[in-house]
Amino acid sequence: MTKEKQFVKEITTMEDDFAQWYTDVVKKADLVDYASVRGSMIIRPYGYAIWEAIRAALDQMIKETGHENIYMPLLIPESLLQKEKDHIEGFAPEVAWVTQGGAESLSERLVIRPTSEVLFGEHYAQIIHSYRDLPKLYNQWANVVRWEKTTRPFLRSLEFLWQEGHTCHATGTEAQEETERMLEIYAEICEHFLAIPVLRGRKTDQEKFAGAVHTLTIESLMHDGKALQTGTSHYLGTGFAEAFGIQFTDKNGELQTVHQTSWGITTRLIGALIMVHGDNRGLVVPPRIAPKQVMIVPIAQHKEGVLDKAYALKEQLKSVARVDIDASDKKPGWKFNEYEMKGIPLRLEIGPKDIEKDQVVLTRRDTGEKMPVPMNELETKVTELLHAIQDNLFARAKAHREEKTTVARTMDEFKTALVENPGFIQAMWCGSPACENFIKDETSATSRCIPFEQEHVSGHCVCCGEKAEHLVYWAKAY
Amino acid sequence: MTKEKQFVKEITTMEDDFAQWYTDVVKKADLVDYASVRGSMIIRPYGYAIWEAIRAALDQMIKETGHENIYMPLLIPESLLQKEKDHIEGFAPEVAWVTQGGAESLSERLVIRPTSEVLFGEHYAQIIHSYRDLPKLYNQWANVVRWEKTTRPFLRSLEFLWQEGHTCHATGTEAQEETERMLEIYAEICEHFLAIPVLRGRKTDQEKFAGAVHTLTIESLMHDGKALQTGTSHYLGTGFAEAFGIQFTDKNGELQTVHQTSWGITTRLIGALIMVHGDNRGLVVPPRIAPKQVMIVPIAQHKEGVLDKAYALKEQLKSVARVDIDASDKKPGWKFNEYEMKGIPLRLEIGPKDIEKDQVVLTRRDTGEKMPVPMNELETKVTELLHAIQDNLFARAKAHREEKTTVARTMDEFKTALVENPGFIQAMWCGSPACENFIKDETSATSRCIPFEQEHVSGHCVCCGEKAEHLVYWAKAY
Repeated sequence: MTKEKQFVKEITTMEDDFAQWYTDVVKKADLVDYASVRGSMIIRPYGYAIWEAIRAALDQMIKETGHENIYMPLLIPESLLQKEKDHIEGFAPEVAWVTQGGAESLSERLVIRPTSEVLFGEHYAQIIHSYRDLPKLYNQWANVVRWEKTTRPFLRSLEFLWQEGHTCHATGTEAQEETERMLEIYAEICEHFLAIPVLRGRKTDQEKFAGAVHTLTIESLMHDGKALQTGTSHYLGTGFAEAFGIQFTDKNGELQTVHQTSWGITTRLIGALIMVHGDNRGLVVPPRIAPKQVMIVPIAQHKEGVLDKAYALKEQLKSVARVDIDASDKKPGWKFNEYEMKGIPLRLEIGPKDIEKDQVVLTRRDTGEKMPVPMNELETKVTELLHAIQDNLFARAKAHREEKTTVARTMDEFKTALVENPGFIQAMWCGSPACENFIKDETSATSRCIPFEQEHVSGHCVCCGEKAEHLVYWAKAY
Repeated sequence: MTKEKQFVKEITTMEDDFAQWYTDVVKKADLVDYASVRGSMIIRPYGYAIWEAIRAALDQMIKETGHENIYMPLLIPESLLQKEKDHIEGFAPEVAWVTQGGAESLSERLVIRPTSEVLFGEHYAQIIHSYRDLPKLYNQWANVVRWEKTTRPFLRSLEFLWQEGHTCHATGTEAQEETERMLEIYAEICEHFLAIPVLRGRKTDQEKFAGAVHTLTIESLMHDGKALQTGTSHYLGTGFAEAFGIQFTDKNGELQTVHQTSWGITTRLIGALIMVHGDNRGLVVPPRIAPKQVMIVPIAQHKEGVLDKAYALKEQLKSVARVDIDASDKKPGWKFNEYEMKGIPLRLEIGPKDIEKDQVVLTRRDTGEKMPVPMNELETKVTELLHAIQDNLFARAKAHREEKTTVARTMDEFKTALVENPGFIQAMWCGSPACENFIKDETSATSRCIPFEQEHVSGHCVCCGEKAEHLVYWAKAY
């Protein structure tokens, strides 16, 4: 057993049991703990700091595109939820019901918001009167509750955190442009910050949001070949607006109904982060979103000058990176393991020998590469490496997705691909729900999206063999 | 009727009906709208931006003092809430109960968190083992629900937003130092950012938090002479820790129980802001917390050069202030009124005559003072004025509180003061709950705090005449 081995927190390997590996990482990287309520999670400081980083980046982009934050009530009266028929049908089976307040039994039940379209609908009807009031571009950061049967931290939990944008526009064109703009912002958050490559596309009618005309989506591929929907942007048309009476007088003095959108991303993104970049030593956090980018580990820190130098390095690096130091009396081996498990992009070792040589030793979390770096090149090198790690994580994930994407022209090819190279399947679809359902029943794979970038991989539906024009990405999904 | 008058949004004057004035300001300054659920509020973009500013300032101070953010579940099982006896007694009458999830009737009822001591208690018992794990300094930004009978936006609502800090310490001394540190941070938020002077003190046993050993509080005085508790910090002792088994091995290997604190401030602070600084023309927002500090209103904006100059001024001022421009086709009079109602600290007018004279006209929201300012002095003058407004608001509020504070040595003096000069009453108290209750029943005034800065205004209890050592501030309160 090597010296480092003995400090290794034991986690299941991905190859042995991917689901268990995920649970182990979530727990041992101190992202989440479990609470008394089935299916609820405690987001621990390290997990929450990652969420704060995602939120800060996204909030800035949401504001820069002219949106304003607002806060809507948590509780929705049953009668309000019922105003839009498709919407209530979609959500009723999975809401939590409040039936009592203090000692009083409520005459009307309340639901804890599973999403807030109806609250925004009611509010917009109050405040929109004229074309001058449009567009209305609101966003909310909030918690929502959905009564899920089986739950997993970040991926599917009773309660989760998210943002939900809700906008009103004078025309359908403007509203549809908005859904595209927001989908692109979500893609930017995933690709630029989280280093997660995404497919951009549209959901089939069966997979769209309850109450939407259509749903745009970004989809990404996890290590185990399963897909994860990482963000959605819905064009709601005038359905909610008609149900709630959101009308405005246009420039010609005529009464019109607004066109709406809604869009959201959730703490699920942290689940994606884990399953796209993580490895058998734990989490790997892309530098741009990492709460801590560099962790300094002093070696032989009881020796004169080591800790002083380590703290000086922390000061020195402050201007180029989010840097921290672990000067606790734990063994360096324990520390190495701990910060690998937490996925901190760079480890910086500094000991008496390094001080003699006027150098430090940097180790990349993504590749494991270890390198001595002269003190006077430190800032440059750290900056360079953080960029390199960010780029490498994205490139690696993209290569993985490409490798795990198979074209299928027949159901046989489809099924073989799912077994031999689990991941995305590109296959043509005739557009009929019957074929979509057949594929789902036969293979457990669902249509993930009709990508904006269409390729013509064949002329016929993979399922029924009829003429088909839509390329669809299919996959088993979370 | 003057030209400006005709654009004035009608609000009730404070002198006519203070409660109605408050409601009018809340609504007409676009802070809040009402939703379908009784007692819940929609916090509109302008109100939410003020909350975001408060949150940003406080979050930074919370983090700088070594605290970490975390997120706990919204729902608490009934059995967990019952673990600490005083706590459940205090909160049970005012919680919302979830009894059904989807189609399933729950075998155990869940409450929507009214506060999260029990969740933190359960979690801390899991993660604290050794003295090395201490102190644990956690904070949460969240929504909570309390089933209040009568509600008013920001002051008392079914749901509100807040932060709740929860910490564990090795000793009672450390924990008590923490409660003092956090109270001082709350005082700083109120005084430095919100320009609201506060009294710092301790609650009497009757007024303390359910489950606390003692509660520290900051109290401020509203325009109408009523007090508002603006923040509290509780020393919980070992009560929750014993109920939840939060123990640690100390340096000598002995098992000890942790000492805890909890502390919180809420969206109530926005209510305080309104009632401390507002006037009959609407809200007045202190510059340091104002989402917009300067509003540019172009005059005769259809004339050549005016809008160009106005936008150029916005660019010019960006580095010294949060500045916005209203270039809509609404009349200047409407705009003047609108931004006065919203309490924006400075209005900047720019019209053809100003351009000729190479000047702008600035108007202070706090004093109404209107002054021409040469273009080349603009940045300096704006910076200076924003400081002056901030200082003036604080000084004015402090003078108001001093003027509205009366010493009472007898119950007659006490009652006379409440009628003739409603505000704080300084009176000695013997320490008995009987006297406290008598005063409350007789006058509706409650003990607000035993101030840290004690004065000896008499030797005898204002109520029973017995020997008394505690000076107490009393007031009718929100």
